[in-house]
Amino acid sequence: MREKSLEYHSQHPKGKIEVVPTKPTRDSYDLSLAYSPGVAYPCLEIKENPDLVYEYTNKGNLVGIITNGTAILGLGDIGPAAGKPVMEGKAVLFKKFAGIDVFDIEVDAKNPEEFVNAVKMLEPTFGGINLEDIKAPESFYIEEQLIQRMNIPVFHDDQHGTAIITVAGLLNAFELNGKRPSEIKLVICGAGAAGIAIAELVQHIGVRKENIFLVDTKGVIHHERTDLNETKQKYVQNTKARTLADIMQNADVFVGVSVADMVDESMVRSMAKSPVIFALANPDPEIPYSVAKGVRSDLIMGTGRSDNPNQVNNVLGFPFIFRGALDIRARHITLEMKLAAARALAELARLDVPESVSAAYGGEKFKFGPDYLIPKPFDQRVLYHVAPAVAEAAVQSGTARRPYPGREKYIAFLEGLMRA
Amino acid sequence: MREKSLEYHSQHPKGKIEVVPTKPTRDSYDLSLAYSPGVAYPCLEIKENPDLVYEYTNKGNLVGIITNGTAILGLGDIGPAAGKPVMEGKAVLFKKFAGIDVFDIEVDAKNPEEFVNAVKMLEPTFGGINLEDIKAPESFYIEEQLIQRMNIPVFHDDQHGTAIITVAGLLNAFELNGKRPSEIKLVICGAGAAGIAIAELVQHIGVRKENIFLVDTKGVIHHERTDLNETKQKYVQNTKARTLADIMQNADVFVGVSVADMVDESMVRSMAKSPVIFALANPDPEIPYSVAKGVRSDLIMGTGRSDNPNQVNNVLGFPFIFRGALDIRARHITLEMKLAAARALAELARLDVPESVSAAYGGEKFKFGPDYLIPKPFDQRVLYHVAPAVAEAAVQSGTARRPYPGREKYIAFLEGLMRA
Repeated sequence: MREKSLEYHSQHPKGKIEVVPTKPTRDSYDLSLAYSPGVAYPCLEIKENPDLVYEYTNKGNLVGIITNGTAILGLGDIGPAAGKPVMEGKAVLFKKFAGIDVFDIEVDAKNPEEFVNAVKMLEPTFGGINLEDIKAPESFYIEEQLIQRMNIPVFHDDQHGTAIITVAGLLNAFELNGKRPSEIKLVICGAGAAGIAIAELVQHIGVRKENIFLVDTKGVIHHERTDLNETKQKYVQNTKARTLADIMQNADVFVGVSVADMVDESMVRSMAKSPVIFALANPDPEIPYSVAKGVRSDLIMGTGRSDNPNQVNNVLGFPFIFRGALDIRARHITLEMKLAAARALAELARLDVPESVSAAYGGEKFKFGPDYLIPKPFDQRVLYHVAPAVAEAAVQSGTARRPYPGREKYIAFLEGLMRA
Repeated sequence: MREKSLEYHSQHPKGKIEVVPTKPTRDSYDLSLAYSPGVAYPCLEIKENPDLVYEYTNKGNLVGIITNGTAILGLGDIGPAAGKPVMEGKAVLFKKFAGIDVFDIEVDAKNPEEFVNAVKMLEPTFGGINLEDIKAPESFYIEEQLIQRMNIPVFHDDQHGTAIITVAGLLNAFELNGKRPSEIKLVICGAGAAGIAIAELVQHIGVRKENIFLVDTKGVIHHERTDLNETKQKYVQNTKARTLADIMQNADVFVGVSVADMVDESMVRSMAKSPVIFALANPDPEIPYSVAKGVRSDLIMGTGRSDNPNQVNNVLGFPFIFRGALDIRARHITLEMKLAAARALAELARLDVPESVSAAYGGEKFKFGPDYLIPKPFDQRVLYHVAPAVAEAAVQSGTARRPYPGREKYIAFLEGLMRA
């Protein structure tokens, strides 16, 4: 794959995206509209009414994917330039799945305050900001500051994207194993951006905080630890468990957002009946799919890999969350919008799957059950289920700045968008 | 035109540009190369060898057009958001004429130091920076700081773009009227970004500093003025002339980069024999073309308008200057590169004009002379003349970081680029 990937990236034109005109540019008349002197008219309109920037420019369909390169994929702090292929890749996904234009912006600023100031200054450029691959705990501060200080939606996908798809999968796992969220014991291995966001979001589907156990590189986050940052301190538990193996006993759900091979077969055996494992470390999960499934037949399992069932893939979230947020011109991406996205995904997985989806996956059949909890990325219905749910939740949570046209009209708009 | 322009901008998709994938995205295999897990390979390559960001991403073809909105077109300080249509328009021109991708970046920072810091942090994102529509004198400081602090080319088009095309036109005007640059008296009306840059660049084609007279809103910049910023102080002249009318007497060349109607017929009459007027105020020149030409038949005249002969249009410069600079990976855009661009434009105007150019202008014929000093924007030869000249000058001035393949190979590369 290495060779194929390098070839894919270096073929002319190098990289993965280009910027092209959307309006005619045939002759000097066209250019006199696109640029001087005609361009003065939309400028003056926007000057009079700042909202018209959404009418006369691409701002309303434009997301900035912004990183400082401190936590690129599973590769760590490799710097902003080395992160550019990831950011361009994400731009490709935004366009492919939701018709959203993206500028990928790599910022040379490790200092959170500097980074925040730089991003804040870019507000006139974008309709929304997708923060990407920024190291925790700085990422929490950065997102919080930017949400407070900016009037466009700011979303740290490594946190909330992962949390939303995980919650969608959990909703359906509980549907299948009949467990009540309020009674499950949840172990989250990895207390970085994604782990914390998952711990927060699951509480809103009924998981109780006292039943959520976080584990970091030093073991369980417990009441005697003295090395915890502010974010982790919120999840301190009074427990005698110290190791991951300790805390896995009788756990109903394990969510891994850490590294490969953290979980062994005995830990899987020690879990409660009908357990759920979402082992999301990439590319190699905390325990391989086949190994865990080999241990017990009552296990529901998902990973981050496309070659296993139940891939927890952020691409099921961010394109459609931003689509809904941009179209309703949400000021923020609220908790309600995140939950609406998770619920819409869970509901979609319970519907019959059309032939077109099977066709996109080499004829493989999908039917709601332990091996199909979560929709597939190449299911074109995802857009039409998630974006309207997000837009409606934006209206309900009071963050929308445009009226919602109604689901039917909105879906017709989305269909037009994707045909173009 | 107002209505047409607003319609042009607001038709779906709103604005003028979009970002599209350049590589296959048909199925999950393609996406596994474009994004996780395959994208990790180019990331790691770049981490090991930072130069490879030019191999595996679009950086080497990507220019940031960056403004803070303080001097948008002739509209003044209308703010960064209201400037967005102009920046998107410029992105269209970069792509149309030179195949260069552009992210337009509107920065909410009037304070020059803040602006410089923000732009500097964006260095990993771009292959070059085109500063745009930033108010003088701050623009001088901003450009100077960024050139010093960044390792990618930084170019303030309002200054140097205008200066380069103006110099190209002047070279040919002197070719026609037989005047020697060292002997001409030059009046520049407007001492902002463009005016100062013209004053600087013309000295390198032989115009003597003591023969350059700048005029600002308070009149001639003379030795008794006490209100001059640092930049203007460099152009103080010991003269009794106080008004534009005073200084226009016996001037060989007038260059206007100010506002409409600064020049009247008597001023034109008072100029030396075979005078040159480049009245570049937009959309209405310092004196209308037909009025000035009506005063005297020995006048060579250009404006900023496409409906007059000799349009001094920056689009003849920036796309090709950046094309050459990016392709040779120039660290800076040097004086030699600017002069090479001006000379290449002047030389091209002296060549026979092919039928295809006439066809692009409704059959109008062009032949080197007082009414055709400067190539036309829709002349496809401009790319192949200017970009190689700029690239070669980059090599000669020691700022190139890649070997030059030779003119023939480079032109073949450019042809391939524009066919795609």
